[in-house]
Amino acid sequence: MSTWFVDRKPVDTIPIDDRAAQYGDGLFETIAIRGGTPRFWTLHLDRLQQGCERLGIDAPAAETLQEALAAAIIACDIDTDFAVARITISAGTGPRGYRRPTDAQTSFRIGIFESRAMPATAYRDGVETRLCRTRLAIQTQLAGIKTINRLEQVLACAEWNDASIVEGLMLDTEDRLICGTMSNVFVTSGKTIATPAITRCGVAGIMRRHVLTLLENARIACDVRDIAATELQAADEVFLTNSQFGVLPVTRCAGQAWSVGSMTRQVMSLAAGNGVPECAP
Amino acid sequence: MSTWFVDRKPVDTIPIDDRAAQYGDGLFETIAIRGGTPRFWTLHLDRLQQGCERLGIDAPAAETLQEALAAAIIACDIDTDFAVARITISAGTGPRGYRRPTDAQTSFRIGIFESRAMPATAYRDGVETRLCRTRLAIQTQLAGIKTINRLEQVLACAEWNDASIVEGLMLDTEDRLICGTMSNVFVTSGKTIATPAITRCGVAGIMRRHVLTLLENARIACDVRDIAATELQAADEVFLTNSQFGVLPVTRCAGQAWSVGSMTRQVMSLAAGNGVPECAP
Repeated sequence: MSTWFVDRKPVDTIPIDDRAAQYGDGLFETIAIRGGTPRFWTLHLDRLQQGCERLGIDAPAAETLQEALAAAIIACDIDTDFAVARITISAGTGPRGYRRPTDAQTSFRIGIFESRAMPATAYRDGVETRLCRTRLAIQTQLAGIKTINRLEQVLACAEWNDASIVEGLMLDTEDRLICGTMSNVFVTSGKTIATPAITRCGVAGIMRRHVLTLLENARIACDVRDIAATELQAADEVFLTNSQFGVLPVTRCAGQAWSVGSMTRQVMSLAAGNGVPECAP
Repeated sequence: MSTWFVDRKPVDTIPIDDRAAQYGDGLFETIAIRGGTPRFWTLHLDRLQQGCERLGIDAPAAETLQEALAAAIIACDIDTDFAVARITISAGTGPRGYRRPTDAQTSFRIGIFESRAMPATAYRDGVETRLCRTRLAIQTQLAGIKTINRLEQVLACAEWNDASIVEGLMLDTEDRLICGTMSNVFVTSGKTIATPAITRCGVAGIMRRHVLTLLENARIACDVRDIAATELQAADEVFLTNSQFGVLPVTRCAGQAWSVGSMTRQVMSLAAGNGVPECAP
């Protein structure tokens, strides 16, 4: 169940000439709502604004977005104690043609959706993943931001149906590990943590950014760098981050098995103490 | 001006949870309407069906599409003697999430738009182009088909405002010449023509395919192969193909100048005699 709002009014349609629908010309944020409040709002807003700048469209005013989101949370018919919001930014409406009309005006819409917490067993025992055949194309101009061009993720998710597989990990076209279809990935080796640089492709997740800050504050070394696919197999521990579930241990991928290790536990504990209580042991 | 139809009824909205609008999950065709009839319908239909197969969605029945397009041409308020139709195929509607719902049903909508012929001077004297900074990412899974993930083209078109520049040529991330933002490109060297292989990125245009068939029938050698960016500068002649304008000579790109040569004239003459009268001298 969901409720969508445009200009604070509930809607169930958008203009047929919306550029998001015509060309994927826009971006979006998926924001955890906890206790009726958007979690990590400033981080989401920051990525949204950066994304608009990269796409060359005007970002809606921060206060406008924040107030519209707050209004949607109040007006919707959904239990917002634990929910998820999607803000979609469209480059506006326009006639046929890749070129944006000079009078195009950025628009946005907000959807509030029901959400369920991951089962406690997922946090305790870890989750199984697979390695996707679909690769991420290298496109530095779009890397990091959450655009509406997401066919690679759609195709990757279509690769499996087994509900016991929680996520698919993705490589780029040059055999680097990049991220999951809807999450970021971290690998550990001894006392060191590493996560792929999101400079060529992939989405730089909000929870990834939060965890990187937590690690820095806790003086736990974490390298943001290129990670070869082969490093995944050699990792001591693997974990995922995502704005909705927080931090999840990975126990399986592509024939490799890991136990839930102490580094992952430490990161989960840090997150649990810093805004992401879902990760508490 | 345009008119959009869904289920043969005029509409101006689509569902807000349409997957094309959420993730660019779909594809489209842009079809020249000449004398009230879609030009090269079977070629468009073929690419549309191939695209659906590549995306893993059900294509609407061929007769359904053809009849709906014919009905839209009749019902619209536009002079369809010379117009353009867009058929958008969406993977359907669905809740938040990259994974398509098991009950998702492919939908389509048809828009009929006013169109204007290119000025005669463009065909006679050729057109100026630029070399875009935006590169095409290498993604073999999506190469050739006309998906709704078109941000690269949108960003490329945003690079220039000068109306005297008719098209931007695009390289892939490995310095190969691939296509224009909305056209395909051919280069000649002596008596040989070549056009880039569309196997890693780019859209395999309908007019490109038509011209390749015409060349084959006329026993004019045309190589479909990788073309390095440096080959563009060395070309004797350069021309563009596009389903709307047909064939256009290129006289300028990235500091290089070409005259309208005999090979290009020959191709334009072939096209003019085979369904694309716009190209007639």
